[in-house]
Amino acid sequence: MRVLVPFDATDSKSRLSPVLAADERRDFAAAMLEDVLDAIDAAGHDADVLATGPLDVDAPVTVNDRPLTAAVNHVLAEAGPPLAVLVADLPLATGRAVSRLLDRAAPIVLAPGLGGGTNGLVVRDAAFRVDFHGASIRDHRRAAEALDLEPAMVDSFRLAMDVDEPGDLAEVLLHGDGQAAEWLLDAGVELSVTDGRVDVTGPDGGP
Amino acid sequence: MRVLVPFDATDSKSRLSPVLAADERRDFAAAMLEDVLDAIDAAGHDADVLATGPLDVDAPVTVNDRPLTAAVNHVLAEAGPPLAVLVADLPLATGRAVSRLLDRAAPIVLAPGLGGGTNGLVVRDAAFRVDFHGASIRDHRRAAEALDLEPAMVDSFRLAMDVDEPGDLAEVLLHGDGQAAEWLLDAGVELSVTDGRVDVTGPDGGP
Repeated sequence: MRVLVPFDATDSKSRLSPVLAADERRDFAAAMLEDVLDAIDAAGHDADVLATGPLDVDAPVTVNDRPLTAAVNHVLAEAGPPLAVLVADLPLATGRAVSRLLDRAAPIVLAPGLGGGTNGLVVRDAAFRVDFHGASIRDHRRAAEALDLEPAMVDSFRLAMDVDEPGDLAEVLLHGDGQAAEWLLDAGVELSVTDGRVDVTGPDGGP
Repeated sequence: MRVLVPFDATDSKSRLSPVLAADERRDFAAAMLEDVLDAIDAAGHDADVLATGPLDVDAPVTVNDRPLTAAVNHVLAEAGPPLAVLVADLPLATGRAVSRLLDRAAPIVLAPGLGGGTNGLVVRDAAFRVDFHGASIRDHRRAAEALDLEPAMVDSFRLAMDVDEPGDLAEVLLHGDGQAAEWLLDAGVELSVTDGRVDVTGPDGGP
């Protein structure tokens, strides 16, 4: 199946700025994208990066500078289903986790992200359209139900764990073994173990 | 299988204090415990609450006021394996998710929690001991490997999503349909949808 991987080359992970500088965030975002592409490949499917601008990566890249929702719906309308979408900031994704999303037999399959997002999506119904704003997992569930489709939900921590905030980097160090985890180790980002949830310290000993 | 569910009756979720008062936190923690017990029952296993003090709940309760790690290791030493542990603050747990943990055939099965914790654990090897301090998922993995055992990891968002912080309540409202979700709705805790991850507003319109 064709798997769209949207990638915003212009705004690389600004919420990580307490820990990483702009060029570091760009490199780290590219490493996460590589991990997602590797996981899709390991699952035996074909990734197609949907980028806001030109990008040097080992996969076909379609450049479309529309906002995410419009860009994905454009592909859905042009190419039709089946089509999958997987976000690019999932450094814990594995072939096994991606298979659980892509190989699930249901007209609509959804993998929730932390905080109400939709990190993975399979569309096998021609009438379905996406909307990635706000609590999109709730909206996608409702959109499926409005078409009389029962969405299948994938219960995966590896697919839920998108990286947006400094604390998320701890999960990459704890559970990742791909390029993003390696990048963090090389950059000197380290686990900081306290009583509550584990956090990180940045390359400069910060944040 | 016997599933220990540790429950600290003395310190109910203090990190939720920006949103919930002390008596609310106690009631909400009890609702989460009920959800976990329901999920274990739905998976066809037997829950045994390991509480720091007397507790009124529809399951056998063993009172042991030792710290968590010592209390669980005491049961492991006395009763021996197989033994499972599932934390009490998993309001998204379902029978299906719990089955993925308990029915996995491996000497040690681990379900990671957000932030380095271990939310679920199955011990089928008599030499294994638990240690819930710090980044316990890493320590449990190493402890298994030190016994020459390859731990099986359960990739579940529902089991990873323990509730400690106000933002976690958003996940309960988005994905829960048990007693904890119902309690939040009744208390007037509501989703607050912004551009980033979804958050909540408290009963008083706060936090």
